Amino acid sequence: MVATNLPLDASRLWADVMALAEITDPERPYTRRSFTPLFLEGRAFLARRFAEAGLAVRIDTAGNLIGRLDGANPPLGVIAIGSHSDTVPSGGRFDGIAGVAAALEVVRALREKRERLCHPIEVVDFLAEEPSEYGLSCIGSRGMAGALDAAMLNLTDPSGKTLRDALRDIGGDPDRLPEAQRSDVTAFLELHIEQGIVLESQSLDIGIVTAIVGIRRIEIVFEGAADHAGTTPMPLRQDALVAAAKTVASVRRIAVQLAGEGKGYFVATVGILTVEPGAANVVPGRCRLVIDARTTDPALTARFVDAVERESAAHAAMARVKRAPLATLSEGKPVGCDPTVRAALRQAAQALSLSETDLASGAGHDAAFMSRICKSGMIFVPCRGGKSHVPEEWSDREQIAAGAAVVLQAVKALDRTLQSRVKG
Amino acid sequence: MVATNLPLDASRLWADVMALAEITDPERPYTRRSFTPLFLEGRAFLARRFAEAGLAVRIDTAGNLIGRLDGANPPLGVIAIGSHSDTVPSGGRFDGIAGVAAALEVVRALREKRERLCHPIEVVDFLAEEPSEYGLSCIGSRGMAGALDAAMLNLTDPSGKTLRDALRDIGGDPDRLPEAQRSDVTAFLELHIEQGIVLESQSLDIGIVTAIVGIRRIEIVFEGAADHAGTTPMPLRQDALVAAAKTVASVRRIAVQLAGEGKGYFVATVGILTVEPGAANVVPGRCRLVIDARTTDPALTARFVDAVERESAAHAAMARVKRAPLATLSEGKPVGCDPTVRAALRQAAQALSLSETDLASGAGHDAAFMSRICKSGMIFVPCRGGKSHVPEEWSDREQIAAGAAVVLQAVKALDRTLQSRVKG
Repeated sequence: MVATNLPLDASRLWADVMALAEITDPERPYTRRSFTPLFLEGRAFLARRFAEAGLAVRIDTAGNLIGRLDGANPPLGVIAIGSHSDTVPSGGRFDGIAGVAAALEVVRALREKRERLCHPIEVVDFLAEEPSEYGLSCIGSRGMAGALDAAMLNLTDPSGKTLRDALRDIGGDPDRLPEAQRSDVTAFLELHIEQGIVLESQSLDIGIVTAIVGIRRIEIVFEGAADHAGTTPMPLRQDALVAAAKTVASVRRIAVQLAGEGKGYFVATVGILTVEPGAANVVPGRCRLVIDARTTDPALTARFVDAVERESAAHAAMARVKRAPLATLSEGKPVGCDPTVRAALRQAAQALSLSETDLASGAGHDAAFMSRICKSGMIFVPCRGGKSHVPEEWSDREQIAAGAAVVLQAVKALDRTLQSRVKG
Repeated sequence: MVATNLPLDASRLWADVMALAEITDPERPYTRRSFTPLFLEGRAFLARRFAEAGLAVRIDTAGNLIGRLDGANPPLGVIAIGSHSDTVPSGGRFDGIAGVAAALEVVRALREKRERLCHPIEVVDFLAEEPSEYGLSCIGSRGMAGALDAAMLNLTDPSGKTLRDALRDIGGDPDRLPEAQRSDVTAFLELHIEQGIVLESQSLDIGIVTAIVGIRRIEIVFEGAADHAGTTPMPLRQDALVAAAKTVASVRRIAVQLAGEGKGYFVATVGILTVEPGAANVVPGRCRLVIDARTTDPALTARFVDAVERESAAHAAMARVKRAPLATLSEGKPVGCDPTVRAALRQAAQALSLSETDLASGAGHDAAFMSRICKSGMIFVPCRGGKSHVPEEWSDREQIAAGAAVVLQAVKALDRTLQSRVKG
């Protein structure tokens, strides 16, 4: 049940989300890729709205758009709220955008009620949270956390342009990147659509994020022999797909078992499986699969990798094919959300009579980088059918407004409870 | 052990194979696709060699190149020998070609020894045995068997040209197609490389083909939900690849079991498996797989399809995905080789001190269509590593010559044993 009497303007918040949605590549809604003219158009809209809300607007050297509301006691440090306004290609209207619009509505509600907080509040639109053309995601939050290094700035897009030049073109300053790294942020709160169906399937209003998963990507390649599908008797085959298919089944079984133990969030997916040569009349000679394993507990991933290593080797031997050593394509550690921020968010939801549950975030978010420099927390709001990164992505006006109200109440609570912790 | 004292000229036969190999697209050896200028160049070479061997050369209305040697008693009907000179893209030097060159060498050997047979002998280069740009294979042997119909003539290549026009351009006559259908052929013999590794792995010289498999192609589509790989807990997934992968494992297990029963040749392959959307961070929403099942005994395929139907439905249910009804993309019946021709081939091999074994043909061949109109048989010669339809495709000079000698001796024997069976 979503509360209807919220301490903010749900319609105004919704109007901002819808206005940003209109700023899209008309050929493939909803597309507003980072670093593009459309992205800058979206940011110009946001900067106007920030200014209209009475915020001091700037772009930091890492390319983040920031609107600041002064506090009564600036040495307490900043409470930052935000998310991102870039999208994936043919993405949705809510992923990231809902969090930026909610943050803006929070400060508008505070100002309208003339509730001046002790902490300065900053609304942040982080640069390029989605995987960008430079092969890097979370560029802005990396910069704010001091995790954007020179090698990353040398990454190039398909045209050969460097991230360094792209950052300069959108108003950042790669030569003064260290200035983007913050030591004056006390807390960070992010609202995001769930991108999953846990809240919807349980009819809950709010997910209080416990941790953001670490993601490991593993590649497995099987090499067999691309023989004639008619003339090669079954016992003489070296069928790479047979080994790969059995490995897919193993990944599923092992993941279900680890997830079911209840020791932490665990999911694993084979999303990529390629078959060569891929003809009906040829025994597959080579298969490549990519496993995406995510957890809040690295011990689970270690056990997962051990089991996949063992079972895939057995499948390869049975199918008489070679299996290359498992290759780790990328690896990120899980990040726990701050207990103080989580408690504030839970109490806010309960005070607003909203139903809530603890929930791990299976997706990466800017909050993961912000947690390196301050107490960070996130809430999820439901999204229809769990669909995200697609044009059908949807959250109701009331669902987003309820989430924004939770953030508002939590910010007010944290403004009181974080009084004693003065930052330098 | 290959006999060294053969009743024909192994070097001359080999020279023809190598000369045809030279007539290739230089950018991607060995490519001489049916209906192309290179194909016509290859046929011009063959027509010259046919004529030099004293054969009367013509192209029938179905586009087959035929060289005829008269017999003493033409009413006995023709003994035809041949295969095809077209290749797949980036194919080999032997598939089809070895059979045409061997047939030519057989009549040259007969003429040089002044052994005039009672039956007329025809050397045939069948048109377009390989899958052509018109989506049809065995075009010439279909025509000779009366199995090339008007609908097939209306097939078009990617440029929109009809097979009807293409047939006319290479010297056939689509308006007089019925004239290509033969009722005067008594027997047909085809030599072909094995395209498998049974002969090589058992160090045998000759495979006496018992039957040519019937091929059934079956498509299975699984529809799940393309959810976020991070935010969708394992129990809430509808992973199409999990169902598809388990079906691949089922296909393998069922095929191994049926093949092991020894009731007939059986192989089944999943050579095509596509995953959509095919991104590392998305649960597969849709998978399509194509099964190629081949057998000499249709009862085995019926049992196979029943088992795959049942197991794939169970896998779909377990993975919470939909499975479309199994779709039969194509279906061909197995064709048994003629016992008289098989016996003549076996006796010829034994007389030449060549080792031989009965062997099913897992690939389709022109002999399958010829068996509709006459007593047909085939022999296989070994090919290295079983590789075919690739540039590395290889048979030794002595292996092909030994096979040609078997055909020669079998033709002579059949010329005697088929005396009593006068055709109308």
